[in-house]
Amino acid sequence: MLEDKKPQLTPISELGEFGLIKHLTENFSIKNSSTERSIGDDAAIINPEGKKVVITSDVLAEGVHFNLGYVPLKHLGYKAVVVNLSDIAAMNAVPTQILVSMAVSNRFPVEALDEIYDGIYRACEKYNVDLVGGDTTSSTSGLVITITAIGLENSENLVTRNGAKTNDLLVVTGDLGGAYMGLQILEREHSVYLANPNMQPEMEGYDYILERQLKPEARTDIKKTLEELDIKPTSMIDVSDGLASEILHLSDQSKVGFRLYEEKIPLDTLTITTADEFNLNPAMCALSGGEDYELLFTISPNDYEKLRNHPDFTVIGHAVDLEQGNFMVLRGSNELAQITAQGWDAFLKK
Amino acid sequence: MLEDKKPQLTPISELGEFGLIKHLTENFSIKNSSTERSIGDDAAIINPEGKKVVITSDVLAEGVHFNLGYVPLKHLGYKAVVVNLSDIAAMNAVPTQILVSMAVSNRFPVEALDEIYDGIYRACEKYNVDLVGGDTTSSTSGLVITITAIGLENSENLVTRNGAKTNDLLVVTGDLGGAYMGLQILEREHSVYLANPNMQPEMEGYDYILERQLKPEARTDIKKTLEELDIKPTSMIDVSDGLASEILHLSDQSKVGFRLYEEKIPLDTLTITTADEFNLNPAMCALSGGEDYELLFTISPNDYEKLRNHPDFTVIGHAVDLEQGNFMVLRGSNELAQITAQGWDAFLKK
Repeated sequence: MLEDKKPQLTPISELGEFGLIKHLTENFSIKNSSTERSIGDDAAIINPEGKKVVITSDVLAEGVHFNLGYVPLKHLGYKAVVVNLSDIAAMNAVPTQILVSMAVSNRFPVEALDEIYDGIYRACEKYNVDLVGGDTTSSTSGLVITITAIGLENSENLVTRNGAKTNDLLVVTGDLGGAYMGLQILEREHSVYLANPNMQPEMEGYDYILERQLKPEARTDIKKTLEELDIKPTSMIDVSDGLASEILHLSDQSKVGFRLYEEKIPLDTLTITTADEFNLNPAMCALSGGEDYELLFTISPNDYEKLRNHPDFTVIGHAVDLEQGNFMVLRGSNELAQITAQGWDAFLKK
Repeated sequence: MLEDKKPQLTPISELGEFGLIKHLTENFSIKNSSTERSIGDDAAIINPEGKKVVITSDVLAEGVHFNLGYVPLKHLGYKAVVVNLSDIAAMNAVPTQILVSMAVSNRFPVEALDEIYDGIYRACEKYNVDLVGGDTTSSTSGLVITITAIGLENSENLVTRNGAKTNDLLVVTGDLGGAYMGLQILEREHSVYLANPNMQPEMEGYDYILERQLKPEARTDIKKTLEELDIKPTSMIDVSDGLASEILHLSDQSKVGFRLYEEKIPLDTLTITTADEFNLNPAMCALSGGEDYELLFTISPNDYEKLRNHPDFTVIGHAVDLEQGNFMVLRGSNELAQITAQGWDAFLKK
């Protein structure tokens, strides 16, 4: 057949705008009854089924949020979805739909978009969300992916950033700093590769932190776990920019201060040993590294017993009056260091 | 004061991500009771108040959708909102919220973003929609704006693309082709300017078509007009890519064909005279020009009397069985030309 002789890579222009969207989205199936109308109309129709709608948008831009020198396109698509679902999870809502918008340089063939959409597809399958719309356009330069995620939830279950009270406990899921250390490994090995393309990258043994960076997961499981423990957080946020920055957001919105205990910050052994290799303080990686996509929340002190031995959770501090500010109690001392958006200040308060 | 000596233009990096978002959005007020929580949390919370939620996303990319050589940033912000609200109007829903995401080269100072947000603000004010979220990030190259628009509507009022029946009438609002002719003027004068920056652009007398291109409006007014006339369209779409392409979408989704009458296509006098100046067929500008953001819809033939004399509407054709295809009846003849995504084919069917 003549068709078999087509070159391996297909320029985007060959499919046209509507052909491209059809090609990229034809494998996606609808999984939620709330999705009434999906791709193919001027807008999607969602039936909120009596619930509130939560909605968020995040942009990932080439050269800023990802480097295609070492980020596989499939992982990029997956991560672009996950970072948005994480925001929905941080509202204690169930993610149900996404819209995907991309501006794509024509240096990308259709096969590259297929890879990105394969990652998006896998994320939709894993998290049970429906792709209901979006837009794909050419761009004169790099790749920009904007995803909008929608979640539905009964009003009484939603958790915002502004409900923390003095004496509430500060709790985080999972461990922190791993994504940042994974990025350090990727950047180091990419530099080595650029200097000498014959060098094999040394990634062995770093699997956990590489996965934390390249294929993070959204903690959509936590909502159910908290329900089973009969705990409703008083405030919640996801750890996308780093623990320090997120604590300051909760402080700002809830009008409380926080005391964070450095020695309580949950760190994976590999994060610690890799930080050591790079001469970094692992607590700093947790505080200012970001991209861990764990959930940070506050609970009433009365709920402490319910989660104190649960493997998903670590109590890392507590809320104080706003006037007392946001400080970290340093490891093995009573010294306090002020928490700043970048981590913490060298300035110590006794 | 020392602060007064700061340079006139502010680099984006000076404000930081959160400072920038706060700076850009602080003037926006909430106008809809459905907006329960806006910017400042992981996600916005919308109360659908028993209605269905319609949602759409559109990307505008520099160099593809706009040329900053002749598009003022304020108009760009306004238009980016309008093109999304037009999609909500095309579902016969009321737009209520938007999220704005931008990837911005650091060649843009804060003052440039202020201009864009001024346009967004004006669109929000005019159309009574709330800015509830989004994301602003730096990019390594151009400007990409992605807007997500949300609308709410009772289920029974929503109109999709797939309800047209054989013998339904095809109706369009306003006039077509003007935005495309406005673009021709802008590109001509921009070329003249590039060739000789001392030449004054000749824009006088082209106001209407320039405004159609630079500051289009979404026909959110049509919903109320149709209600007053007691008409519910059987299918609807907005004219963003050109009349021909939109007719084919309605055909594809509704499983009918269409007969379009060239002589019925509503054209402004200025569109006709300018098309003449460029040696273009004005009907071609309507069919394949796009960006008019008028609404194209079908109604039951029983509703014809209700709108036949209304100044907002023109009946331009009717639906036929799918097998009869999509054809335009040429002006002053009974000849048929096949409608294609690009306009119509030279091939004539007798």
